[in-house]
Amino acid sequence: MSSRNDGNYSPDTKRLEAFSDGVFAVAITLLIFQIKMPTEESVRQAGGLRTYLGNLWPSYVAYGLSFVTIGVYWANHHYLFRLVERNSHGFIMANVVLLMAISFIPYPTAVLGDLYLNDAERATAVSFYAFSMWLAALCWLGVWLFAQNRKLTDPRLSPAFVKTLTRQYLTGNVFYLVALVTSFFSTMLSLIVTFGLTILYTMPPRKPEYQPEIETKKS
Amino acid sequence: MSSRNDGNYSPDTKRLEAFSDGVFAVAITLLIFQIKMPTEESVRQAGGLRTYLGNLWPSYVAYGLSFVTIGVYWANHHYLFRLVERNSHGFIMANVVLLMAISFIPYPTAVLGDLYLNDAERATAVSFYAFSMWLAALCWLGVWLFAQNRKLTDPRLSPAFVKTLTRQYLTGNVFYLVALVTSFFSTMLSLIVTFGLTILYTMPPRKPEYQPEIETKKS
Amino acid sequence: MSSRNDGNYSPDTKRLEAFSDGVFAVAITLLIFQIKMPTEESVRQAGGLRTYLGNLWPSYVAYGLSFVTIGVYWANHHYLFRLVERNSHGFIMANVVLLMAISFIPYPTAVLGDLYLNDAERATAVSFYAFSMWLAALCWLGVWLFAQNRKLTDPRLSPAFVKTLTRQYLTGNVFYLVALVTSFFSTMLSLIVTFGLTILYTMPPRKPEYQPEIETKKS
Amino acid sequence: MSSRNDGNYSPDTKRLEAFSDGVFAVAITLLIFQIKMPTEESVRQAGGLRTYLGNLWPSYVAYGLSFVTIGVYWANHHYLFRLVERNSHGFIMANVVLLMAISFIPYPTAVLGDLYLNDAERATAVSFYAFSMWLAALCWLGVWLFAQNRKLTDPRLSPAFVKTLTRQYLTGNVFYLVALVTSFFSTMLSLIVTFGLTILYTMPPRKPEYQPEIETKKS
Repeated sequence: MSSRNDGNYSPDTKRLEAFSDGVFAVAITLLIFQIKMPTEESVRQAGGLRTYLGNLWPSYVAYGLSFVTIGVYWANHHYLFRLVERNSHGFIMANVVLLMAISFIPYPTAVLGDLYLNDAERATAVSFYAFSMWLAALCWLGVWLFAQNRKLTDPRLSPAFVKTLTRQYLTGNVFYLVALVTSFFSTMLSLIVTFGLTILYTMPPRKPEYQPEIETKKS
Repeated sequence: MSSRNDGNYSPDTKRLEAFSDGVFAVAITLLIFQIKMPTEESVRQAGGLRTYLGNLWPSYVAYGLSFVTIGVYWANHHYLFRLVERNSHGFIMANVVLLMAISFIPYPTAVLGDLYLNDAERATAVSFYAFSMWLAALCWLGVWLFAQNRKLTDPRLSPAFVKTLTRQYLTGNVFYLVALVTSFFSTMLSLIVTFGLTILYTMPPRKPEYQPEIETKKS
Repeated sequence: MSSRNDGNYSPDTKRLEAFSDGVFAVAITLLIFQIKMPTEESVRQAGGLRTYLGNLWPSYVAYGLSFVTIGVYWANHHYLFRLVERNSHGFIMANVVLLMAISFIPYPTAVLGDLYLNDAERATAVSFYAFSMWLAALCWLGVWLFAQNRKLTDPRLSPAFVKTLTRQYLTGNVFYLVALVTSFFSTMLSLIVTFGLTILYTMPPRKPEYQPEIETKKS
Repeated sequence: MSSRNDGNYSPDTKRLEAFSDGVFAVAITLLIFQIKMPTEESVRQAGGLRTYLGNLWPSYVAYGLSFVTIGVYWANHHYLFRLVERNSHGFIMANVVLLMAISFIPYPTAVLGDLYLNDAERATAVSFYAFSMWLAALCWLGVWLFAQNRKLTDPRLSPAFVKTLTRQYLTGNVFYLVALVTSFFSTMLSLIVTFGLTILYTMPPRKPEYQPEIETKKS
């Protein structure tokens, strides 16, 4: 009976992946809405459309940064799910929480783009952005630890590799926390750390390592 | 001839599931738009971005609650469709009505987040939210009863299990109705019932039980 | 060489269907944005949130009508593509034009919901809505005629069945045109025709009929 | 060990295609939001809804042009990925950058639709639109060159065919650059070039040509 229940979820990482892909795709595309449309008034205030569009540069930068970040999360999700062999209701729920953090990113991105040129509010906008980035990294770590804890990952993975991955995700969290704390005294430094992390994550992820004796390829 | 027609729909729960997944993914991601963007005026009114963002706490809570609720509906949809073996045009239509109720959720979520701190309108906002939650539960029950009534479910399921599931969905409806009625005299109690139901539904769904004699695994 | 080129498209109605499903799913879910969010001012003007939400009834009706209409288009798309056996670049382009008409629907839906209670503009809003409905029906007919003309449909379909389907789609176009023309003198009648058509289309589509001698089931 | 790592990505162009399809589907459907909703004031200013909706013609044209353009990009993406045999993290990242350019298109589309009738800003709006079109073409070329450079394309493709495709994408870039430069002195000419390119791209893409000796069909 219990084996049937396992069977009711196991083969379905596929639908979970498809749903996650959908959320990633929507969240990444919605970022464009965060760039403010010109209105008659805002164009006049800027002294013409050309200047208006030019003044939006923080929005373009925020758009690019968040787009690449969500893209990297998607690519890593795709990578991580190849290491996960079994599914469970709890794992689905952990994943929903991760997606909630990812879907939140467009909001702080918009705030950052809108208010970066506002001297009085820049620091708050950067902190809010860094906080949301850290939140996503934390949920990511949570999904990974959950999968390990419930033994959903491929048992053939070498313990050393699993440990390395855990350490890597923990380090990411620490750096995002550094970006958050830094934002309280230097917005520039905080953004550099965040940028740096995103660029770092565009590097190819580590090759999975398997235990030598049972080295069979996962289909 | 009639068997061909059945054949024209049967194998295609897959495309129905893919479409539903798409709607769930879009609806859940659109929730972020319900959090009001700061404007120059609203930030000034709040006395700074930090206070403005802090005052949005009901929007964050409503975002989280609706995100998890839609996520749970998605997971249960995924669960329910494993119990459904055949498809029909009517079933597709019943499903479209369910998706209509799910896609509606972002609107009352936004109203709740925006007006929770408004003493005069809080009760109405909570009632509206509870009403939309009950509507979704009602459509869910409808889809399930339709599938049973038209014998689209797996015939190997034990009648006791089917009855238990029906009773469970009916109970959910009763509780959401309680949340709705409660909202007219205590917004806090109504929200607690709604929260409680969502948390309850994050629990793993019941294991499908099959009739002993024909216990073959569904592919 | 030419057979390879055919091969480069044939198996891929799947990706075209997946893309179309995506567009249908997004368009249908975006309808919710067409219901105007309450603002402090609009709530005050209405004399409270309860009245404000009540006054939105044309928006709820328009939401429901367009949701079911797009849902029916999706279900029929799914039906039609089971009759299409081959793919081509031209067919993809015809499909893109159809999707353009479907994706346009949220705009007239919003206009209808917003302005139905405005006596001076009701007629225009209804005409605009009827026009967009007719446009979608026209593009639908175009996709079907294109598929037939280029012999992309399953050659085993009986000519009588093909003719019946063509006649049915033509009739739909005529009725939508009637709804459009009617809107210029009676908005109520125009809406009744549109409603009627949508309800009619929620009926199961006709069973495909095949030529007797080569009656093999399409995989 | 290295073969396993290749294996970790190779079979998954599918998930990359699914994700890309999602982004294309969302971006194309979001275009409708770029058509400004009538407000009480804007309708009064136009002297009625009929005139208001009529005055939106540049938005309808921009909607149609961008819709078909993104649709063509999608169809070509589908075509290109049939020529790509292997996947890599770098290729995924190149693809993310392309999707970033595609997802950006709704913004200049909205600006073009809104400001085309504004004599003072028309030129800027057209330049901005032409620039974004060129950006997408440039990223497209980048993805193709990346795939070639890293030998991800099907090795059986004839070198002559590969060269022809490269030349064709380069030519597209040159023409979009021409449209961009032209926009500085003639908005009409610039739009004609852009329109022309889109119509040109709706033509079927070139049939893949394979090297004669190893002519086996790609599954």
